[in-house]
Amino acid sequence: MKKVNGGVCAAKGFKANGIHCGIRKNRTKRDLSLIVSEVPATAAAVYTTNLVKGAPLLVTKAHLANGVAQAIVCNSGNANTCNENGIEVAEKMSEATAKALGISPDDVVVASTGVIGQPLDVTPIVAGLPALAAGLTENGSQAAAEGIMTTDTQLKEVAVEFTLSGKTCRIGGIAKGSGMIHPNLATMLVFITTDAKISPAMLKKALSSDVSDTFNMVSVDGDTSTNDMVTVLANGLAGNPEITCENEDFATFMRALNTVTVALCRMIAGDGEGATRLLECRVSGAADKATARTVAKSVICSSLLKAAMFGADANWGRVLCAIGYSGTAVDVSKIDVSFASAAGTIPVCRNGCGVDFSEEKAKAILSEKEIEILVCLNSGDETSSAWGCDLTYDYVKINGDYRT
Amino acid sequence: MKKVNGGVCAAKGFKANGIHCGIRKNRTKRDLSLIVSEVPATAAAVYTTNLVKGAPLLVTKAHLANGVAQAIVCNSGNANTCNENGIEVAEKMSEATAKALGISPDDVVVASTGVIGQPLDVTPIVAGLPALAAGLTENGSQAAAEGIMTTDTQLKEVAVEFTLSGKTCRIGGIAKGSGMIHPNLATMLVFITTDAKISPAMLKKALSSDVSDTFNMVSVDGDTSTNDMVTVLANGLAGNPEITCENEDFATFMRALNTVTVALCRMIAGDGEGATRLLECRVSGAADKATARTVAKSVICSSLLKAAMFGADANWGRVLCAIGYSGTAVDVSKIDVSFASAAGTIPVCRNGCGVDFSEEKAKAILSEKEIEILVCLNSGDETSSAWGCDLTYDYVKINGDYRT
Repeated sequence: MKKVNGGVCAAKGFKANGIHCGIRKNRTKRDLSLIVSEVPATAAAVYTTNLVKGAPLLVTKAHLANGVAQAIVCNSGNANTCNENGIEVAEKMSEATAKALGISPDDVVVASTGVIGQPLDVTPIVAGLPALAAGLTENGSQAAAEGIMTTDTQLKEVAVEFTLSGKTCRIGGIAKGSGMIHPNLATMLVFITTDAKISPAMLKKALSSDVSDTFNMVSVDGDTSTNDMVTVLANGLAGNPEITCENEDFATFMRALNTVTVALCRMIAGDGEGATRLLECRVSGAADKATARTVAKSVICSSLLKAAMFGADANWGRVLCAIGYSGTAVDVSKIDVSFASAAGTIPVCRNGCGVDFSEEKAKAILSEKEIEILVCLNSGDETSSAWGCDLTYDYVKINGDYRT
Repeated sequence: MKKVNGGVCAAKGFKANGIHCGIRKNRTKRDLSLIVSEVPATAAAVYTTNLVKGAPLLVTKAHLANGVAQAIVCNSGNANTCNENGIEVAEKMSEATAKALGISPDDVVVASTGVIGQPLDVTPIVAGLPALAAGLTENGSQAAAEGIMTTDTQLKEVAVEFTLSGKTCRIGGIAKGSGMIHPNLATMLVFITTDAKISPAMLKKALSSDVSDTFNMVSVDGDTSTNDMVTVLANGLAGNPEITCENEDFATFMRALNTVTVALCRMIAGDGEGATRLLECRVSGAADKATARTVAKSVICSSLLKAAMFGADANWGRVLCAIGYSGTAVDVSKIDVSFASAAGTIPVCRNGCGVDFSEEKAKAILSEKEIEILVCLNSGDETSSAWGCDLTYDYVKINGDYRT
């Protein structure tokens, strides 16, 4: 498996584009994106579990009932959520997209991201779609990734190449963060494309299985968005024998999918609103998988630990505290904690109690951009990782005046 | 029922004091407090549910097994938690306190608050106790309240006077916040005293029942502390007939207790680390009490809403979002939301969708120091309130370098 360029256009038969259509006041910021497969593709998606669901998600869910889609349209700048006419607007977006591409509205995945509770004017979207469609290219992944960004500071795309029964396949994705990030059995906006041939049931199985260990293990601020969605389109143009059961090809596909999703998770966490550091909590020695996941997520979600990481302060007591209130039945007296980064590794807690360590070395390790919080529960063999970021002045600044 | 001065010394037979004994480097900051009843008192306490429990809580729990206590000793500057010799140190604190007062160590409630995981040197505590005990007075509540403060900027005390079967009784308390505040079936450090006569069983019942609607409904940062504890001492010196069942006097006592605890909750939330505003989410129209509590707490815990409140931004979509991910089965299409303060009330959402409102008026309302977020679920008669604070630059600053 190797990384390749091209994002959502890396796989055969996919084109993309992103333009400024006029939803945002800033004309230099793209606000409408389109991803299209040249043939109808097998499609799977997972959605937020928030009871307040964006209108686009409800429309997409209906469109994906048959497991087939050919295009993804997404605007930024407005979430089209908690609006009386939200469904109507999302349907109009689908119709305008279908018309511009000459496909059925039922084969369009529609998504929106931005402020909640402000009516979305569909006029600039409908007006912009012909130009958006006309500009579709095999080099359009970056433009599409830019068009879905909100407070993101980095565009997020990745792709890998792998082999199924001798056929070269590719899978790639784009994503946006970067606030209201605390996916729960669902996730933020992620669009993944592949030319692998895979049945709707197996694609759904692959995606659902993957998100529990990837997007559901990311948290920026503990707020589960109303508009989270991950969608995979698989158009089968790689020519591999269709995956219809859990064979070796399925395992390979799962590894490729996981490579893409973990890379996007790290990008989303590292570019969390206001973030200066990517945090990864790696839990080992857990008695069961659920405990490993819960402990990792609890640590990554602690506001106090996140603030300490911003200050490069090795305040490991906050790691123990977050494990203690996680709701798991861990044996505190067996917990070991270390901090690690490119600058080295430093043990700070053994058997639930502090150990002497060099504050200077700890500061050097925690001053890096990517920090690992290593927790060993010494109670079994299960492991899990969760991703987050530090809590900074800029998170407060961004969210103190996001809407106005 | 009327408010009176005196805090934990308002009730008959209680004295208190607070001194600087040398745990903290800053000599102007008191770091050791003592509260004493002139006779043994009925005692009840609730503790954090965090699996990582401070050593003082374990010692206190053992001491209160018989439902009797006469003194409370508490240091700030060090939590005495995650230390190998924590129990030993907490026992030594009890013994030194008992010796200075001429009582049994088993009648001492011991508490600590501050950094986790750094050994607590008991020497300055033992050395300071004779002077601390010698300085006990009926005017000592403020000194005691100061001695338990960590990042608190305001001392927290309150007392009320009420009548039980014709006898005048008083109940008062002191508390400390102000970070790692997200009590779960337990709470932060709160010490309450009363001269009412009440049986151990009924005192425990009153406290346990009260905390579900008071301290458990406060959140500053979502982090449940390892050292949370609420203790009530009732010495019976008011001379009222002992409360031994749920009679009218018990109901009056509950109201008095609740007046004290709600006042302390508001002080703790309003003085949360870095806070500039006190937030109260008042939920009405809930189908059941659990839903009302969960919704109120979910709203008050949202980092995004807290940051918006810091910016006086009426971003009500974040209120809906937090209700949606709270895990309750609410009907989103029935939710109404308003913001209120001393400057007025403004409806912002009706039936789950936005309503037109004056941004100028909303800004004026949200610029006050105490903000109410009014949520009506229109699905029943149950209500609940939760208290929190805004998320500010100073929260990040305080916690980015708390330990160093």
